[in-house]
Amino acid sequence: MNSPLQTDLYQLTMAAAYFDAGKAHQESVFHLFFRRIPFQGGYAIAAGLGPALEWLRDFHFRTEDIDYLATLRTKNGHPMFHEKFLQHLASLRLALDIDAVPEGSAVFAHEPLLRVQGLILHAQLVETALLNLINFQTLIATKAARVCHAAAGAPVLEFGYRRAQGADGGLSASRAAWIGGCSATSNVLAGKIHGIPVRGTHAHSWVMSFDDEQEAFDRYADAMPDNSTLLVDTYDTLTGVDRAIETARRLRARGHQLSGIRLDSGDLAWLSQQARARLDAAGFPEVSIVASNDLDEHLIESLRHQNAKIDVWGVGTNLVTAADQPALGGVYKLAALRRDDGSWQPRIKLSEQRAKSSIPGRLQVRRFERDGEFIGDAIYDIDEPLPPSLTIVDPDEPLRSKAIPHDAEAIDLLQPFMKQGELVREIESPTLARNRCQQSLTKLHPAILRLTHPHRYAAGMEQSLHEGRERMIQQQHNTPR
Amino acid sequence: MNSPLQTDLYQLTMAAAYFDAGKAHQESVFHLFFRRIPFQGGYAIAAGLGPALEWLRDFHFRTEDIDYLATLRTKNGHPMFHEKFLQHLASLRLALDIDAVPEGSAVFAHEPLLRVQGLILHAQLVETALLNLINFQTLIATKAARVCHAAAGAPVLEFGYRRAQGADGGLSASRAAWIGGCSATSNVLAGKIHGIPVRGTHAHSWVMSFDDEQEAFDRYADAMPDNSTLLVDTYDTLTGVDRAIETARRLRARGHQLSGIRLDSGDLAWLSQQARARLDAAGFPEVSIVASNDLDEHLIESLRHQNAKIDVWGVGTNLVTAADQPALGGVYKLAALRRDDGSWQPRIKLSEQRAKSSIPGRLQVRRFERDGEFIGDAIYDIDEPLPPSLTIVDPDEPLRSKAIPHDAEAIDLLQPFMKQGELVREIESPTLARNRCQQSLTKLHPAILRLTHPHRYAAGMEQSLHEGRERMIQQQHNTPR
Repeated sequence: MNSPLQTDLYQLTMAAAYFDAGKAHQESVFHLFFRRIPFQGGYAIAAGLGPALEWLRDFHFRTEDIDYLATLRTKNGHPMFHEKFLQHLASLRLALDIDAVPEGSAVFAHEPLLRVQGLILHAQLVETALLNLINFQTLIATKAARVCHAAAGAPVLEFGYRRAQGADGGLSASRAAWIGGCSATSNVLAGKIHGIPVRGTHAHSWVMSFDDEQEAFDRYADAMPDNSTLLVDTYDTLTGVDRAIETARRLRARGHQLSGIRLDSGDLAWLSQQARARLDAAGFPEVSIVASNDLDEHLIESLRHQNAKIDVWGVGTNLVTAADQPALGGVYKLAALRRDDGSWQPRIKLSEQRAKSSIPGRLQVRRFERDGEFIGDAIYDIDEPLPPSLTIVDPDEPLRSKAIPHDAEAIDLLQPFMKQGELVREIESPTLARNRCQQSLTKLHPAILRLTHPHRYAAGMEQSLHEGRERMIQQQHNTPR
Repeated sequence: MNSPLQTDLYQLTMAAAYFDAGKAHQESVFHLFFRRIPFQGGYAIAAGLGPALEWLRDFHFRTEDIDYLATLRTKNGHPMFHEKFLQHLASLRLALDIDAVPEGSAVFAHEPLLRVQGLILHAQLVETALLNLINFQTLIATKAARVCHAAAGAPVLEFGYRRAQGADGGLSASRAAWIGGCSATSNVLAGKIHGIPVRGTHAHSWVMSFDDEQEAFDRYADAMPDNSTLLVDTYDTLTGVDRAIETARRLRARGHQLSGIRLDSGDLAWLSQQARARLDAAGFPEVSIVASNDLDEHLIESLRHQNAKIDVWGVGTNLVTAADQPALGGVYKLAALRRDDGSWQPRIKLSEQRAKSSIPGRLQVRRFERDGEFIGDAIYDIDEPLPPSLTIVDPDEPLRSKAIPHDAEAIDLLQPFMKQGELVREIESPTLARNRCQQSLTKLHPAILRLTHPHRYAAGMEQSLHEGRERMIQQQHNTPR
């Protein structure tokens, strides 16, 4: 499945041009980062690295790939790629160094999630696939963390496959939703491939295939005596609840227990309270109430504030497509070129908006922690000495800065995963990433976790990097190229 | 890649329950349809059938799938599926009849895109994958048709892979965008797999890897003398245009021709006019101007109205994620059950909103055409006689109806693609679907193609179907089950 052709054509034409321009041996550093936290939130959760590393590990052009590229023609009928370049691709072995923030980590705007170092020809060829894999999974892991935060500890089931963007849009959304904190997925293939627990109830069609609802419930419970969550809204919801109670009685008489009921329409706050009261009055306080129907973090928070009696949340479309912001605008920017003497020359991409200009140099992110709480992240250049006392400057608002206390603990977020194209660390399981995510979130101040108008976490450039960047911006404005 | 586990768990638990409830031989009919045209538009373009048919054709449980299902446990540790059912799955051969609207056809709300007939156990197992594949590709083909409509004949290049929802979210978006009318994709794998033309320019990193922009342009043109579209906004856009003109002169002196320049930021209306003027004045009227940067159909229409001098549109994120509505709410509803005597009993799913109630029966859609224009679609029950003169009733507003003139030509939209699980018709290429789409769009009144507040096409239930459905709704309200 993994293919080096999962790329934009321009990466290949640029590679061909680097090759012809004598730049095939030019070494470079690129960073992958986003400029704005999605969903107007206070944090993002890094995800997608595992599949990205697998893609990099498997990278090679097969004969059929080269044959296809050889068929491509320019407008006037000439081959788009010449033979020598195609031979170069056919024998190409990626020799990149990849340093990355492990999946499940909380991350912030402007921080590199990946640093890619190596031949510019190689680094360019991997851009599109890295962006595709990391943009989407980071988006969904972040969305899932928000939805789970709204659910305040109640399990969230990811139910989105039928509305996901393509087969793998669904599969990778299930993976990222698990990392972000969901408790299970309805997607059986995601369960098999990623070891995610799978859960489900039944559909209206089950009920409609019987002449009456009671019989439908009883037969489902016969088939799944230990695993029945009955969908009660095919006809009248509260009548459905009464029938589910009747089925629960029959199950109990046979030594089993109804797992739950599901509400999929109507006023979920009111209906869940009514259903809870009926279940409790009938002696079934253990039967849980599952709710679904176009839920997202805001609706869940609102239902909780209304004291809805919902034990489990089923979330589909809005989670797996990140409906209110279906793309993370992650970018991949050249940040340094190696000189002949082996040293690194920082490069910057200017923009009319200063904050959109890139951060030059070979970057790392140092995260500071005190009393079990993350207090700030400093992006710094690994080729420059760090001052003994650090100040963080916000790239979006340079007047905002924060001095880091001396006694703060520090870790570097970017960790080496590949050296010269070889994995130097095992690819982590999504479950490990999920645990890291849970742990990260407990270390963020609750105000940062807030769904709307969150507190702004202090993440930015270490002051001397900020100053160096300002000088480069000034210099480039003065000497246009 | 195709797997029967691309499904929601509940399809498998329902299948197990049908099996246990003695309903494994119950025959059924399901329809796949959507209730609302996406993007507040006037039409949708059906897509995704090809991959759906491939998935159905390949459907079988492998040993490893069965082994995985055998590991699943209920909360209290019992196997979720019993041995006999797993054996049934292991030897299951889908025996469904599939009638479907060919890809690229214009379709409307409530019309079945697929009719699935066969054992209810089988029909249930395929629900999720069919919805996943057809929902997303129909959404994107529709979006692409709208974007191309806005471009009014100028080529639209799909550039979205880096922001698409997963690897296949990108690949299948490229396929659907081609069907909807895009001229090319940047996605090389989509080019190889689906035969879509691939196109591209170069990135800012190419320019940044040189010490000056002129050298960067010249070296790119050296490598791609017949295929250079130069990105001019790395530093100052209009200075970039002047340098591109210089490169164009050098290319011309060597007998080649610069293909184009690309604008990727700033005021595209103003910059494109300035760039056009400079190119023309320098004697390069043939050099085209490509524009990109968060475009969608509305922005393209606005730029055209401002007389922007843009020849080619590069559209990415907003197209491949359908950013303003990232999911089509397609559903899959039981519509009939077969009685022991072989006749069909229509089934209806009620909803508090009448329009959301399903349409019962085994359905077909008859499309009427006069003077080369589609004039209406009648959804009808194939088991009921059609009256000699047809009237179409709008399911959303039953007071709206339209009588079809006697002399209109008619075709049935749903065509047989599978019988008893075997393909009875070749799976069509995306290019064939693209041609059908182009042809369909010419047969819709321009007011229906309008991007906002379109005219409402007459698509609805044939009157006797409407009346029968009203009777069923009344009856079910009177005799609650």
